[in-house]
Amino acid sequence: MGRLTGGDPSLLRRINSAVVLHALRGAGSPTLTDLTRLTGLSRPTVEGVIEGLIEAGLVSESVPEEGEARRQGRPARRFRFRVEAGHLLGVEIGPHRVAALVSGLDGRIIGAGSREVSESASADDRLERVRQVIADVLRRAGVPRTNLRAVGVGSPGIVETDGTVRLGTALPGWTGLPLGQRLQRSFRCPVLVENDANAAAVAEHWKGSAKDSDDVVFVLAGLSPGAGALIGGRLHRGFGGAAGEIGALHLLGREATPEKLLSTTDEPLHPLDEHAVAQVFTLAKQGDARAQAAVERFIQRLVHDVAALVLALDPELVVVGGWAAGIDGVLDPLRDELARYCLRPPRVALSLLREAAVATGALRLALDHVEEELFAVESTVTARR
Amino acid sequence: MGRLTGGDPSLLRRINSAVVLHALRGAGSPTLTDLTRLTGLSRPTVEGVIEGLIEAGLVSESVPEEGEARRQGRPARRFRFRVEAGHLLGVEIGPHRVAALVSGLDGRIIGAGSREVSESASADDRLERVRQVIADVLRRAGVPRTNLRAVGVGSPGIVETDGTVRLGTALPGWTGLPLGQRLQRSFRCPVLVENDANAAAVAEHWKGSAKDSDDVVFVLAGLSPGAGALIGGRLHRGFGGAAGEIGALHLLGREATPEKLLSTTDEPLHPLDEHAVAQVFTLAKQGDARAQAAVERFIQRLVHDVAALVLALDPELVVVGGWAAGIDGVLDPLRDELARYCLRPPRVALSLLREAAVATGALRLALDHVEEELFAVESTVTARR
Repeated sequence: MGRLTGGDPSLLRRINSAVVLHALRGAGSPTLTDLTRLTGLSRPTVEGVIEGLIEAGLVSESVPEEGEARRQGRPARRFRFRVEAGHLLGVEIGPHRVAALVSGLDGRIIGAGSREVSESASADDRLERVRQVIADVLRRAGVPRTNLRAVGVGSPGIVETDGTVRLGTALPGWTGLPLGQRLQRSFRCPVLVENDANAAAVAEHWKGSAKDSDDVVFVLAGLSPGAGALIGGRLHRGFGGAAGEIGALHLLGREATPEKLLSTTDEPLHPLDEHAVAQVFTLAKQGDARAQAAVERFIQRLVHDVAALVLALDPELVVVGGWAAGIDGVLDPLRDELARYCLRPPRVALSLLREAAVATGALRLALDHVEEELFAVESTVTARR
Repeated sequence: MGRLTGGDPSLLRRINSAVVLHALRGAGSPTLTDLTRLTGLSRPTVEGVIEGLIEAGLVSESVPEEGEARRQGRPARRFRFRVEAGHLLGVEIGPHRVAALVSGLDGRIIGAGSREVSESASADDRLERVRQVIADVLRRAGVPRTNLRAVGVGSPGIVETDGTVRLGTALPGWTGLPLGQRLQRSFRCPVLVENDANAAAVAEHWKGSAKDSDDVVFVLAGLSPGAGALIGGRLHRGFGGAAGEIGALHLLGREATPEKLLSTTDEPLHPLDEHAVAQVFTLAKQGDARAQAAVERFIQRLVHDVAALVLALDPELVVVGGWAAGIDGVLDPLRDELARYCLRPPRVALSLLREAAVATGALRLALDHVEEELFAVESTVTARR
């Protein structure tokens, strides 16, 4: 443990700044008197802090409403947090689709867009598509690129802290790609790259099925399953960013790959061929015995992978997303089997954000980054909850 | 996030108290001048804090050494943290053995003891044996029971936060036992009950193989494997205290239990019959083909269970303890298979604390509890490391 410093006056100033900013974001447009009451700070302290925040462009004096101006001779000054002082971008780079969301500093989404991309597209082509989507979204939302404070990106693969994809077999040319660095060229603000399932877990906790739970496993269910976990409300990346990469688990049992499990012929399916996969499920519904057996094998595998995560982590809630979440009859067997084999079975819910989960989580990570800067002192003074 | 309070003078007082206590524990017997330098606080502040700590019995003025007294007319007052102001107990309750360790407030062990107990002993008999061991250890160390500040207990099973064993199939009468409450009757201080593998993980991080790593999985390898994990240096219990209970994983694959895997006959071994298990390993060494096949099956299962944990959590280090850790040829196949299937294979090490791991971890948890009270403010001011 590092050495503690005693009652440091500059620390106090920072604490007070964060306190005022926090109160401002919560209230509508408070007066100095309101802020004094909300924060417990003295009026001169609040005034000093407000001046500093106005200088930094984070707070503005709000214009009094007409009625108010008339009623009182000289209305009290009111202040507001300038959500437009900066913008954030959340980006998904997937096998079939790239998507982007833009928001102000309050995280409210003010623009969105997406484009299809071929699963066999090269890394360069895929990144070019990403740039087009981002340019479109910014233009339509009227947000100048220079006003961006942070960009979050969610993508399949194990991502190093510097934004390099250590391993990403789902997309051509992805393994070894310095993704953060490549995207960084287009922006002056920080670019944060995160594994897609991790981003989706953050999103469901922010505004999806996991809003009320801090211990969550999110499963991106598909032929190459991935997972993200929140522990105590915080993303668990693992020591090397590889936590939740359960796709390799079946290899240990010397068992078949999901592509083989779901195949109704002797040939395995292509891992990203969603059309072929969908057809198997359609055939199963129509009563085709071979397809039904394939679906059964696939679901058993998914259950096994999820159970491994649940036994290791003991989450309160499992959220299932990804295309396989849309399949009828995935959730019930998952619940049944978890109840049978887990000592404390978790709740199981479907993703609420669906297709938007990854980009939404990437946006939240960008927002976290900016808030950490704004409220840097908070996390050192109050626990994160 | 809760509302922040501004520059709170009582918070500052508590911070300063913690700062001084922290400096006292690090230094030998510092003077007021030393403490002023170490903490960056003013002399009157340090003096005030020291008076309070002396009143609380946590600090005493140390007697000056003779030489020092002679050299200076009136030597500076020196102070020391009173490690004997309180004592801690760490207890293991296992299938074959109960053990206890006692330490002062610095965590240095000043007494230890253990007794064998039958794997078929009733809960009452086992607890009676625990009380005997504790009485012995306290008597021999000369520690009055009333001087205990906290008691930590490690035991197999899923343990609720109130110390009740939710599920504990390894020991007769353990499931549903209000273990914390039962032991509490013998003490006036808090009794903290923890899963044995969790306690062992904490111990290896404190003074064992995991001293240099904050992201650790500890595997208590045996016929009923359990595991404990530290994430960012903190114990990960899971939402319901069931994290790491990987024993059920093989049920999902509809595969054989470890007891069957290790059997060389058609009858499964008894899960706690270490003698029979040891015999299988001895036979395997002597070249018995059936025993070799059984050992191979057993190791494959262990590898699979550990791999599931590693894929879920992505730790930096896996520490293997429990009786199976003593078996030749467990570690190498574990390393090989993890390297083959994990995207980022962790280091693998043997437990350093061996038999003492569970009681040592229980002691550390008791110490954590007391330190949290003493240094309550620290965790809110500096991150845990």
